[in-house]
Amino acid sequence: VVINPTPSYSKVYDPTMSNPIKEFMDVFPVIAEELLAHLRSLNIPQNAIEWFDRSMRYNVLGGKMNRGLTVAETLRILKRGEPLSEEEIFKANLLGWCIEWLQAFFLVSDDIMDDSKTRRGQPCWFRVEGVGNIAINDAFILESAIYFFLKKHFRKDSYYVDLIELFHETTYQTELGQLLDLITAPEDNVDLNKFSIEKHSFIVIYKTAYYSFYLPVALAMHMAGVKDEAAFKQAEAILLPLGEYFQVQDDYLDCYGNPETIGKIGTDIEDNKCSWLINQALDIASAEQRKILDENYGKRNEANVKAVKEVYVELGIEGRFKAYEEESYVRINALIEKVDHPLLSQDVFTSFMKRIYKRTK
Amino acid sequence: VVINPTPSYSKVYDPTMSNPIKEFMDVFPVIAEELLAHLRSLNIPQNAIEWFDRSMRYNVLGGKMNRGLTVAETLRILKRGEPLSEEEIFKANLLGWCIEWLQAFFLVSDDIMDDSKTRRGQPCWFRVEGVGNIAINDAFILESAIYFFLKKHFRKDSYYVDLIELFHETTYQTELGQLLDLITAPEDNVDLNKFSIEKHSFIVIYKTAYYSFYLPVALAMHMAGVKDEAAFKQAEAILLPLGEYFQVQDDYLDCYGNPETIGKIGTDIEDNKCSWLINQALDIASAEQRKILDENYGKRNEANVKAVKEVYVELGIEGRFKAYEEESYVRINALIEKVDHPLLSQDVFTSFMKRIYKRTK
Ligand SMILES: [Mg+2]
Ligand SMILES: [Mg+2]
Ligand SMILES: [Mg+2]
Ligand SMILES: [Mg+2]
Ligand SMILES: [Mg+2]
Ligand SMILES: [Mg+2]
Repeated sequence: VVINPTPSYSKVYDPTMSNPIKEFMDVFPVIAEELLAHLRSLNIPQNAIEWFDRSMRYNVLGGKMNRGLTVAETLRILKRGEPLSEEEIFKANLLGWCIEWLQAFFLVSDDIMDDSKTRRGQPCWFRVEGVGNIAINDAFILESAIYFFLKKHFRKDSYYVDLIELFHETTYQTELGQLLDLITAPEDNVDLNKFSIEKHSFIVIYKTAYYSFYLPVALAMHMAGVKDEAAFKQAEAILLPLGEYFQVQDDYLDCYGNPETIGKIGTDIEDNKCSWLINQALDIASAEQRKILDENYGKRNEANVKAVKEVYVELGIEGRFKAYEEESYVRINALIEKVDHPLLSQDVFTSFMKRIYKRTK
Repeated sequence: VVINPTPSYSKVYDPTMSNPIKEFMDVFPVIAEELLAHLRSLNIPQNAIEWFDRSMRYNVLGGKMNRGLTVAETLRILKRGEPLSEEEIFKANLLGWCIEWLQAFFLVSDDIMDDSKTRRGQPCWFRVEGVGNIAINDAFILESAIYFFLKKHFRKDSYYVDLIELFHETTYQTELGQLLDLITAPEDNVDLNKFSIEKHSFIVIYKTAYYSFYLPVALAMHMAGVKDEAAFKQAEAILLPLGEYFQVQDDYLDCYGNPETIGKIGTDIEDNKCSWLINQALDIASAEQRKILDENYGKRNEANVKAVKEVYVELGIEGRFKAYEEESYVRINALIEKVDHPLLSQDVFTSFMKRIYKRTK
């Protein structure tokens, strides 16, 4: 394993980036320095500070930052175009970074549990020379940073406790989704009897939708001063189905997307993933087709993968996805049209839908 | 690896136990059921509920519970003998269990990072058949349970935020101690140049003293209504040195304790541990003795261990410990005698000291 250069701030910072992205990126060096200054105040030895800094940059930076950017974007919509103050911009983007830190915590540990090779085009953190299982503790530290930031910047706000509880609950939901995923689809013990459409739905909503879709919007709602539980419930009722639809697309693209467009070659079949596709296939397969799936799913061999894909073709799984995509579009848009809470705006949700519908990457 | 029977509540429950222990133990089944009832309300599949339940019992139960018991004990002292209400007993013991859950989170992950074999007389959780690295996510879930309990039982209390922040900060402190420990004393790369008395002190205070000594007392202080930061600072100024002294004893007993009394055979020398003993030896070793230490420390061989122990004898390390023990006793007692905050009591600290001074296990 080669030590890749740690992605530095200057590497991800592009002076031509649009304003919202620049505003978001500008927050990173400020809050990274807050963490480091605190460490220095504890007199922790220098080698630990360097390790901490390297882990943070390696694992927090380098992603698409969609989740992080969504907080300020949503806050702008909720404030109906009223310009945000500098403080609001900073704080919304700080909350966005907290999601990116949370995701780093999840990804570092998920890669260990999945025994993955690469992440964002570089070796997984635990594969970097000298890191290994220390990455587990590094993941913990990434999570702790969230509450350090919240305390530092939101302690005096009326919604401080709400932010903390929201991060706790979202973290717990994600861990529960991860638990079901891990025991349903262990890579070393393929058993398609464990799969079901219901389990797929639970895994996807808990493991992905809460932290990727609901969390950024709910954070922005807290900043906008929303206190009414009914408004949060309305947002959740749309964002969880949206997140589920997004993940089903992810499962579809893993098999049928263009590797050049999506930037990787899908391996869900080899990895025994509890994907939407296999669950659809299991639901309608004949005894004979089921046998082929049982014998070939979760194996790292081209011939096995081909056999599974042939069953998918026989069963018209691609067509089922297209139908699901249309049905989801109609169903979720109908939900969006019913949004009537005075503190919400349908635009929050349509902007998600626009980015997602029929996406190819 | 054999699957050990999970320690069940009935196994640890002994009807002859003293009242404080019985009161503490009685809280476990109540709060375990709260977690499980919440999971059932989410409609998470049954196999995940069973996994969760098994992990919780396997990892939270079976310890000495000293930390957990200390919260109610300290609250009793702080209330100057005024009897606690049933609600106070329940809530103090619940906070005690939160420490035990926190410790379970630390131990499950520490055992993976240290590649340990057994814990509390049974295989480490990650070594149980079928568990493996899923234990990482199980550790996360153990941590999340703390905030579930706090929200459920303390949300309306004026000190709710203080409890949350205290758990966050203690968790972060422990993780920072763990980080320094992991990079200072990696088992696969022995380098005594990385050790120092200062690093030992930082590791011990951050990795152990905060969560084992300061946390239970600070929790009881919050329940007793203490708000003055100065009182917390006074407590911390005694409990951290006490915790450091306790850990130095632990390092001493690992080498010089009676294995039958301490219940295990020490392996700090083989494990390349950044122990108080080796740091004392490094501090005063001649060039020749240093060479022997460099060549023999951190190796799993009887002859190597013997060579290290011989240098310890030459350097009079055991005598240095005895002197350190006396010096600590005098120094910490002097700190205790200066405790004058009206909301504190010297008894909180003398009860710790009594249990610790010259302990042999
Ligand atoms: Mg993964
Ligand atoms: Mg995974
Ligand atoms: Mg995928
Ligand atoms: Mg250990
Ligand atoms: Mg350790
Ligand atoms: Mg020890």
